[in-house]
Amino acid sequence: MNIEIRKAKQEDMHQVLNLIQELAIFEKEPDAVIITANDLIKDGFSENPLFYCFVAEINKEVIGIALYYYRYSTWKGKTIHLEDLIVKKEFRGIGAGELLYKKVLEQGLLENVQRMEWAVLDWNTYAVEFYKNSGAKILEDWRVVHIFPEEIKKYIYKDESI
Amino acid sequence: MNIEIRKAKQEDMHQVLNLIQELAIFEKEPDAVIITANDLIKDGFSENPLFYCFVAEINKEVIGIALYYYRYSTWKGKTIHLEDLIVKKEFRGIGAGELLYKKVLEQGLLENVQRMEWAVLDWNTYAVEFYKNSGAKILEDWRVVHIFPEEIKKYIYKDESI
Repeated sequence: MNIEIRKAKQEDMHQVLNLIQELAIFEKEPDAVIITANDLIKDGFSENPLFYCFVAEINKEVIGIALYYYRYSTWKGKTIHLEDLIVKKEFRGIGAGELLYKKVLEQGLLENVQRMEWAVLDWNTYAVEFYKNSGAKILEDWRVVHIFPEEIKKYIYKDESI
Repeated sequence: MNIEIRKAKQEDMHQVLNLIQELAIFEKEPDAVIITANDLIKDGFSENPLFYCFVAEINKEVIGIALYYYRYSTWKGKTIHLEDLIVKKEFRGIGAGELLYKKVLEQGLLENVQRMEWAVLDWNTYAVEFYKNSGAKILEDWRVVHIFPEEIKKYIYKDESI
């Protein structure tokens, strides 16, 4: 099977969303995806895109994506963050994930960023091993923290609530 | 002591860099900071800034910073990432950190982002408790992954090295 890796186009975003939803189910958060294909088109293809995306294609079907954007390290300067690396279940094991991963890493070299980063679930041992084998380092002592609008409002305005 | 919270200016970047270096020492990575004050000026004050920054000031001295930028969640859309929240050692315990933290959270509400995020060292129990008490959630099963240019080159070009 001939796998083509190319930049994503606006018209791919419906298929990209399907892959994002497939990953959310795997990550046990099926209801967490509130984004739409139109959001992806608006956010990824405006004058200052919020993300960039490569797709893997077989016979005109998008079977995988690597979605990334820029971050900023106060130690290293501009970095690339790989947000999603997803391959459709029925197309795993044929090297599409590795091709996409290498394409994003290559982008980092092209842009001369001094670090690339992403997050992985610790129980996703296949992914952990894949990344380790590529030379990436798992930072065992850092934790990701999230806060959502409801909690922010409670925290900021708590003193005014009585 | 009167603490003023305001947007950072270009001329603050030397003092901001001092705080970044102070944090790197605390995080046991004193040699990891390769960025310069000029890089911070170039990266934070161009037409499309790579980061934004609030400072806490007492008597014209920058005693704390909250540095953030935008990320993109394929579940939630645009998010804000708090990269650094730092208060100079001799000015801790007077509420400057909380003021800076609230200022960034407020920015998230103003921009209607559906999630804010950052990373914390698991052994920094003071920070972990501070964030938990504000309503933030520590994601125990995610790990941060880094890869650097040297390792990328080895991985991508390994097949061609023989």
